[in-house]
Amino acid sequence: MARILRMGMVGGGPGAFIGEVHRKAARMDGQIEIVAGVFSTDPEKSRATGRALGLAPDRVYTSYEQMAEQEAKLPADQRIDFVAVTTPNSSHFPIAKTFLEAGFHVMCEKPMTLTVAEAEELEKVVRNSGKVFGLMHNYTGYPMVKLARDLIRSGELGPIRKVVAIYPQGWLAQPIESESKQAAWRTDPRLAGAGCLGDIASHAENLAEYITGLKISELSADLTTFVPGRRLDDDVNCLLRFENGARGVLHASQISVGEENGLAIWVYGEKGGLEWHQEDPNHLRVTSLDGPEKQYFRGNPYVAAKSPAAARGTRTPSGHPEAFIEAFANTYVNFADTIRALEEGRAPSELENDFPKASDGVRGMKFIAAVVRNAAGQDKWTRL
Amino acid sequence: MARILRMGMVGGGPGAFIGEVHRKAARMDGQIEIVAGVFSTDPEKSRATGRALGLAPDRVYTSYEQMAEQEAKLPADQRIDFVAVTTPNSSHFPIAKTFLEAGFHVMCEKPMTLTVAEAEELEKVVRNSGKVFGLMHNYTGYPMVKLARDLIRSGELGPIRKVVAIYPQGWLAQPIESESKQAAWRTDPRLAGAGCLGDIASHAENLAEYITGLKISELSADLTTFVPGRRLDDDVNCLLRFENGARGVLHASQISVGEENGLAIWVYGEKGGLEWHQEDPNHLRVTSLDGPEKQYFRGNPYVAAKSPAAARGTRTPSGHPEAFIEAFANTYVNFADTIRALEEGRAPSELENDFPKASDGVRGMKFIAAVVRNAAGQDKWTRL
Amino acid sequence: MARILRMGMVGGGPGAFIGEVHRKAARMDGQIEIVAGVFSTDPEKSRATGRALGLAPDRVYTSYEQMAEQEAKLPADQRIDFVAVTTPNSSHFPIAKTFLEAGFHVMCEKPMTLTVAEAEELEKVVRNSGKVFGLMHNYTGYPMVKLARDLIRSGELGPIRKVVAIYPQGWLAQPIESESKQAAWRTDPRLAGAGCLGDIASHAENLAEYITGLKISELSADLTTFVPGRRLDDDVNCLLRFENGARGVLHASQISVGEENGLAIWVYGEKGGLEWHQEDPNHLRVTSLDGPEKQYFRGNPYVAAKSPAAARGTRTPSGHPEAFIEAFANTYVNFADTIRALEEGRAPSELENDFPKASDGVRGMKFIAAVVRNAAGQDKWTRL
Amino acid sequence: MARILRMGMVGGGPGAFIGEVHRKAARMDGQIEIVAGVFSTDPEKSRATGRALGLAPDRVYTSYEQMAEQEAKLPADQRIDFVAVTTPNSSHFPIAKTFLEAGFHVMCEKPMTLTVAEAEELEKVVRNSGKVFGLMHNYTGYPMVKLARDLIRSGELGPIRKVVAIYPQGWLAQPIESESKQAAWRTDPRLAGAGCLGDIASHAENLAEYITGLKISELSADLTTFVPGRRLDDDVNCLLRFENGARGVLHASQISVGEENGLAIWVYGEKGGLEWHQEDPNHLRVTSLDGPEKQYFRGNPYVAAKSPAAARGTRTPSGHPEAFIEAFANTYVNFADTIRALEEGRAPSELENDFPKASDGVRGMKFIAAVVRNAAGQDKWTRL
Repeated sequence: MARILRMGMVGGGPGAFIGEVHRKAARMDGQIEIVAGVFSTDPEKSRATGRALGLAPDRVYTSYEQMAEQEAKLPADQRIDFVAVTTPNSSHFPIAKTFLEAGFHVMCEKPMTLTVAEAEELEKVVRNSGKVFGLMHNYTGYPMVKLARDLIRSGELGPIRKVVAIYPQGWLAQPIESESKQAAWRTDPRLAGAGCLGDIASHAENLAEYITGLKISELSADLTTFVPGRRLDDDVNCLLRFENGARGVLHASQISVGEENGLAIWVYGEKGGLEWHQEDPNHLRVTSLDGPEKQYFRGNPYVAAKSPAAARGTRTPSGHPEAFIEAFANTYVNFADTIRALEEGRAPSELENDFPKASDGVRGMKFIAAVVRNAAGQDKWTRL
Repeated sequence: MARILRMGMVGGGPGAFIGEVHRKAARMDGQIEIVAGVFSTDPEKSRATGRALGLAPDRVYTSYEQMAEQEAKLPADQRIDFVAVTTPNSSHFPIAKTFLEAGFHVMCEKPMTLTVAEAEELEKVVRNSGKVFGLMHNYTGYPMVKLARDLIRSGELGPIRKVVAIYPQGWLAQPIESESKQAAWRTDPRLAGAGCLGDIASHAENLAEYITGLKISELSADLTTFVPGRRLDDDVNCLLRFENGARGVLHASQISVGEENGLAIWVYGEKGGLEWHQEDPNHLRVTSLDGPEKQYFRGNPYVAAKSPAAARGTRTPSGHPEAFIEAFANTYVNFADTIRALEEGRAPSELENDFPKASDGVRGMKFIAAVVRNAAGQDKWTRL
Repeated sequence: MARILRMGMVGGGPGAFIGEVHRKAARMDGQIEIVAGVFSTDPEKSRATGRALGLAPDRVYTSYEQMAEQEAKLPADQRIDFVAVTTPNSSHFPIAKTFLEAGFHVMCEKPMTLTVAEAEELEKVVRNSGKVFGLMHNYTGYPMVKLARDLIRSGELGPIRKVVAIYPQGWLAQPIESESKQAAWRTDPRLAGAGCLGDIASHAENLAEYITGLKISELSADLTTFVPGRRLDDDVNCLLRFENGARGVLHASQISVGEENGLAIWVYGEKGGLEWHQEDPNHLRVTSLDGPEKQYFRGNPYVAAKSPAAARGTRTPSGHPEAFIEAFANTYVNFADTIRALEEGRAPSELENDFPKASDGVRGMKFIAAVVRNAAGQDKWTRL
Repeated sequence: MARILRMGMVGGGPGAFIGEVHRKAARMDGQIEIVAGVFSTDPEKSRATGRALGLAPDRVYTSYEQMAEQEAKLPADQRIDFVAVTTPNSSHFPIAKTFLEAGFHVMCEKPMTLTVAEAEELEKVVRNSGKVFGLMHNYTGYPMVKLARDLIRSGELGPIRKVVAIYPQGWLAQPIESESKQAAWRTDPRLAGAGCLGDIASHAENLAEYITGLKISELSADLTTFVPGRRLDDDVNCLLRFENGARGVLHASQISVGEENGLAIWVYGEKGGLEWHQEDPNHLRVTSLDGPEKQYFRGNPYVAAKSPAAARGTRTPSGHPEAFIEAFANTYVNFADTIRALEEGRAPSELENDFPKASDGVRGMKFIAAVVRNAAGQDKWTRL
């Protein structure tokens, strides 16, 4: 029987979106329990969240430094196994570093840091700590994304020629920064670092590299702020070139009125193509040179045959849809099983080890930095 | 802060499908914890499941009767608040009855019983017990189903004229009874009572009555067993008449090759229509006499404005899809809040009280009985 | 080089819908020219239409009897080869009979006649005339419908078990009879004979029998008139049984608000299934027991390989959509090539001979009669 | 009554694709008849096509120069009114110029010429000729494209911020130049000038400018040839900037395996957005800041109310799909009515005058030239 892991959380107080998603995802499979946290910089709000979660009052802390210190002093069978970092971007780096150095595994929201330098330093901290670090690029947790990766890995599409990754949203088409907590921090340069670029374009970048197994080598970008008064970009358009010669397009937006969370990807190889939409996550369209188009549906034996990773990330039979929270939960399952493997003194299997890591965070920060630099200059191409 | 309820379970052992869905759904929101159970008729399998769930060994029982008796003896702050019954159909009735009479609330899988007589008796038991009884017609837990109901309730579609409810599946197109545990009990007359009719056609019936607020008054049916050697029906086709004069069609199938879990409904009123598909649950199509068709997407303010129940059943922002397990969880949330209301000595709100009950179970059994009777005879119409 | 056929028309005057579709379809491929007609019972309207069509004034007649008589007197290289009958239902029989007996081929709108007796008589007239008779069940002209038929014919789906054919429309949800010419005659018992049943349910029946190659043996039906004051049915629901033991559902409606021309069909065999929608006519979904679902798209080599008939009915490459008028035109092409074969003294090929005939008209009238009889009585099943 | 126009054609011999589409489109409405042509550089093939079309032998010419000269000598009521130029790109300019200068109206395939200089010269020739010149950017003939334009024109979407126009195809993913006539000339620099860029990217450019009413001011581009041995580009990716500050992405491809004719566009304004797909041409998705998404379907009164141009381009009721050939035909109808207006000595109405012209051809050639120049250089942005 798998040991139930103890989770702490930094962030996720009243009005938070992503912290509660982390909690639901962590709870879903009964293999992780939430036992400690600092949920807000306001101690009263933090305590209120702790109470709502049924935590012991002495496990709700007033600062993440205090939490790291106090938890480290608890007996090994009581203290948290890992912490989930779900605060605004600017504090990811210090919090993650603190907990890693205090001997805890870390699951961190993306983007990993504010700068490439921080990202590279954190990658070193992770390496030196010997701890497990997960980066919540949750979209790679979807089973059909894993199938897509595995179809490409197996050569079914042939060498990849073209990638189109898009992430349109419309919720920031108007200046709602003053009304919405979610909008406020995401458009604050100090807290978020980058706007649309860091919040969602980086997901598209991560998805493209994850599915294709290719690295973006250079890009050309146009970065725009459409909403008057906004301090960060709300629209991103990029031409991509990949290390193998493949070409691509990536665009993301927060001003595409009517789009909700439209992350989608198309990949074309010499022999076939595929298409996946986050809002319809249980399907994968696959094309070939000479037959009718195929629609793969999650949960079928023919999916499992091509992708054990997709099968592993499946909880319900085909036709019983799974969605966003389950994709998060899949990332947690693999992260947790890798922690358990470490405890058990064995190497995690490839399936267990399948979750985004600090190296993905470094790639993400390099992508963000390259877009910012290219968009500000006159050079056509900027290398990552 | 809401009290975390203690849940017991009967059923849901190794290889079970729906029991584990109940557990994931119950856990998701952190308001229910699983503390006891009898998971299999095989005590060793039951204990193994209990261990995997992290239960105290003395809360894993060898029979439901023992469980009801022992739990009732525990102190009020330790014993289960309710039991989830997730066994094959034939045992729903005795188990539910036993726990209700022992003073526990019950969440029961559908179909509620094997016969109308049992259903009516169980309805009485519920009434006499003063306990909360929930019937897991999970599809009514989807937010867009609640929006559909509320649009009709508000008169937006006008008086209803026509209803088409379908539930095609293909997984039993071949005689897999001998290989699949799920197939075996569902095609065993002794355990399941009815085949496709009880397993899925009854969901379509429940959905149609829930969304429209109308009762089916009479029906004409064709019940077929296509797979040689199968002992129960695997295909159901019905003409429906509703008490208000509306007409309808209901069909369900387990031999529709390639269909997965295709529950869907179309409702047409004098002023508008709507369409919803379980496999694409975050959308609702709505039509009117004179404008472009509208697509409602879960999680938007315009949904909340029309349906507080849909908003209440929403965990993630629009575009971040929710699915099957969340719909289950919504049924649990309302069931649990109604239990809490009872504890607090107040009437549950209409929103809290929105989950299927014993009366729905009686309707379902009457529907099943009417289909069986009509299909076997020469009369064109059979009243429910 | 194919001889360009000369077409006459009865019906299709100002305000007509289907007559103009016949003309566009007939013209499209440059193999048929319109040279004569009586387009309206009002001679002035008829002449106006003739002028707009560029007809010689002496080829615009005041009655169909006159037209048949006068055209027959013209030299063989001037007179019409065939007549298209596009009047309201009640006059199909006398007009078709008149022209057949005058030695002309006939393309007739459906339903073929008002009664089974007329239909059977017309079938005899056709046989005795030695002329070519086409019945415009245009939906069988779609290439993907022909592919569907050919996949079933070849056994790819295995023996057929279940058929669902639907034809929802919403345009008559309100009493627009007084405002709309199209609505007026279609709801007039004297002109139309049957309402929704004859206008569109009969298309669904024809499509089901064409695609499956099976005959409906018996049915149970519910026929309703929802709109107050309407004199014919506007909603049809049927249970179907086919001669091979397959079961089915057929429903059609003119009061399904928001539905436009939603003819669609699902067929399930022992080994596979298929689904086709008239409003998305270039696609065919095909399922099997064990692989991912396939989407066939018109115009591809893999379609041609399975269905020469689909390839023959294709004018543009894949991705360049074809639609309603082209399906009509396909029916005309086969009808015209069959006429040419007759002229050339050879049997038409199977591909040429692939268009609906008087025998389909008889089936349609039997279907209509069976629905009316069953709906009015207490018997559960009525044989066709 | 409208005078039936006489059409000549250059191109469209055996094996041609687009020439036959022009003919079907021109014939469909009975307002244009084909009377003359030179269909191939091979006189025998040309004569064969003429025979198949039922032309008088003396109206089938051996060269376009001869045709222009001879037709000009015919009496005014016999000679062609206009010529359709459907040859490979390289001959559009000389042919169009010749016929314009001989006093004929011209309908020309796109791209208009091989160079910007030719395009600008042809624009002058058109102006000086006083004749009507149409450029067959057929996709702007779709009714829902006209609705899209009219919604934007009316301000319903607010000022435009972002445009995404894509045109993926996969038919040239392999080197089929040697087998396919269509592929051969399209990949021949001498005949086609540009590859994917001229063949389809220019359609995306035209569609974007037509729908938004905005001009592209500058662009950054990546032009690739993936298939070994191919002499022209088969993949195009561009960042776009529009004169009003809007940003955009345009990509097109002939190596996107499985894509057929995937022209599509998304436009986002301050108040709303829209989406249209050529392969599903009867629908237009429209979004707004605060309501459910709307789906406009061709043929409805609510479409006509917003776009008389869409209504004018509609032949069948809603739900009876129209497609590619009808869009061509709509371009012909407006072109022909503008010719008739000229004959009648009146200015064509705005609805009649709604077809692509020489100015669109100049824009297209500037777009092509800018992409080629930018892709070959180091500058980030190139002005059109």
